[in-house]
Amino acid sequence: MGSTGSIGINALKVIESKPEEYRIVALAAGRNIDLLLKQILRFQPAVAAVSEGVLATSLKGKLKGRSKTEILSGSEGFREVASLEEADTVISAISGAAGLVPTYRAVEAGKNIALANKETMVMAGPLIMDLAKANHVSILPIDSEHSAIFQALQGHYREDLRRIILTASGGPFRDVPKEKLEIITPEEALKHPNWDMGKKVSIDSATLMNKGLETIEAKWLFSLDIDQIDILIHPESIVHSMVEYRDGSIIAQLGVPDMITPISYALSYPRHEETGLPALRLEKVGKLTFQKPDMERFKCLALALNASEMSESMPVVLNGANEVAVESFLQGKIGFLQIPRVIEKTMEIHESFSIDNIEKILEADKWARKTAEKVLRGMAN
Amino acid sequence: MGSTGSIGINALKVIESKPEEYRIVALAAGRNIDLLLKQILRFQPAVAAVSEGVLATSLKGKLKGRSKTEILSGSEGFREVASLEEADTVISAISGAAGLVPTYRAVEAGKNIALANKETMVMAGPLIMDLAKANHVSILPIDSEHSAIFQALQGHYREDLRRIILTASGGPFRDVPKEKLEIITPEEALKHPNWDMGKKVSIDSATLMNKGLETIEAKWLFSLDIDQIDILIHPESIVHSMVEYRDGSIIAQLGVPDMITPISYALSYPRHEETGLPALRLEKVGKLTFQKPDMERFKCLALALNASEMSESMPVVLNGANEVAVESFLQGKIGFLQIPRVIEKTMEIHESFSIDNIEKILEADKWARKTAEKVLRGMAN
Repeated sequence: MGSTGSIGINALKVIESKPEEYRIVALAAGRNIDLLLKQILRFQPAVAAVSEGVLATSLKGKLKGRSKTEILSGSEGFREVASLEEADTVISAISGAAGLVPTYRAVEAGKNIALANKETMVMAGPLIMDLAKANHVSILPIDSEHSAIFQALQGHYREDLRRIILTASGGPFRDVPKEKLEIITPEEALKHPNWDMGKKVSIDSATLMNKGLETIEAKWLFSLDIDQIDILIHPESIVHSMVEYRDGSIIAQLGVPDMITPISYALSYPRHEETGLPALRLEKVGKLTFQKPDMERFKCLALALNASEMSESMPVVLNGANEVAVESFLQGKIGFLQIPRVIEKTMEIHESFSIDNIEKILEADKWARKTAEKVLRGMAN
Repeated sequence: MGSTGSIGINALKVIESKPEEYRIVALAAGRNIDLLLKQILRFQPAVAAVSEGVLATSLKGKLKGRSKTEILSGSEGFREVASLEEADTVISAISGAAGLVPTYRAVEAGKNIALANKETMVMAGPLIMDLAKANHVSILPIDSEHSAIFQALQGHYREDLRRIILTASGGPFRDVPKEKLEIITPEEALKHPNWDMGKKVSIDSATLMNKGLETIEAKWLFSLDIDQIDILIHPESIVHSMVEYRDGSIIAQLGVPDMITPISYALSYPRHEETGLPALRLEKVGKLTFQKPDMERFKCLALALNASEMSESMPVVLNGANEVAVESFLQGKIGFLQIPRVIEKTMEIHESFSIDNIEKILEADKWARKTAEKVLRGMAN
């Protein structure tokens, strides 16, 4: 799910390289039907889904006589892909809040999840973890940081964990003078120093909201208290994250910044399979640096940590308001520093409520988007 | 075994802090009977051994009426300590070749080994590993590098390992101009930048022979080919070593440079227990650097890798000649750069033979020492 995004494309590379181990039975994408068409022709899945009926019709026309793939659309289509009987594992790689419901459906259907969509955990962590436990579903992280933590937890007792340390590149504006942050353009913000990613994640990485969302994700995924999660700026993106145990021993996972490794590990867990990636040569990297994040510079990170502590519906509101603000920034409607302002104002207006089912989450998400839009209009006036 | 050395002292600290988990049933030391006396009074072991009969007599006199500990001496005494029925685990922390036979006896007696004496593996790796396997004995490394590798192997498949990366501080002369190496004094060589260690190990650390011996130790301990072991100079001594898996993922173990952590892990394996050590703060360390070792500068390292490839009796000869050369350097008889020369000449004279029992190893060791002494006398003339 999300086969035409950057995680999806890399996941298909891993799968393509091991035809004796993996078989694609379904694909789902949003709007990029040109790429989806190629993927369908290459992998010949039983089912494929796109976001809208009109795209499905267009895709069917192009596929005529070239494939037996059944083409579906909309939330019903995604639901069918998520719960397809032949599937053992669902790769959840849809970007943003749109990934939540299909991932939830996959857990409901008892599929193991290779999880790249962090919003699933940010918005519905407790619900998803409970459901996964009840349905004996494994959730294997694809995010490089969470994969690192997951790898560093293998073979050690969970009770011996003292804290985890999530690393963050610090994005392209780590050392830019603060007064210049106001005039940053979307083009500048999209240039990530180490990782090649989608647009939304690139902006989240520049504001460090990405690290905030990852902190919330890690909290639920690994059953941690928020004060057991430290964040370190590590511009080289070589140490993907670390776990500290009670005796002072820290287990870290390192590698070249390439999503192939965590995707491969999520699919082949508990094995590490050949990926064809060049080995990390630390003597060529030379040095690895670490510093504490500046919470004044990275207001989005502070907001995310606050939302996480407030829990209940607040992380959902944080996430929804952030998506609206980032989209608005990408369209050139607001400046870079207005992103956290929109989120903060939306959070201030929000009265937190408990979320014990998926509908409540979607309600909080809808409220957040509507309110953030209002806040945006208020700013424009 | 080796309770008055730096590892022994730290091991007793760990043991002292967990009286409900560990009990000392025997102690063995070389010549430092003043400290051993204090340790006996503190831990009241059933048995204690010292290297010579005259020291045992003196110790007995001092202990009169203050302890029921039985005092033994010499190789018979060490043998009894190594195979004492009440002991589950023997900490092998005697320095140098002298540690081999007692450790071998402990493996023979079916005791689990917490191994700090690297010479045991350098001289008798295949013998020890075979005997340990036959007797269902676990060998848990205490050396920080080998503990790091051991920790990084937990929870991952051995078949997925691609290589290991041993880190080396590079010692105090990493950046000293080569022409100055000739005139280095023992006092300068004993100042290790990060670790507080015994004299012999400090010199081995300055020549990088220590890393050479550790490479040979790792080869046997983890069943590796020598070309699966890379060495990186890492002056900060924070990353204690790493394992690279087939998918490009590297698992590293990090910590403050303190032997308490690896000692504690060897004793509490597979658990990590509270040690009271301050947490590593990477933001305070700031940066970690890595470079390839200069084999021209560190001839001892090159010699060790050669000896390891030649295998059979050659590593024993390397080790014996090194002990003689280091002792001679510490006594001010030879210069720093003559250490590798003595070893190299001794190795050149040696005709390698196969070593299938402990007597053959002791024979090779004796030959090496005698020959190294001859080489030394030749140099003096």
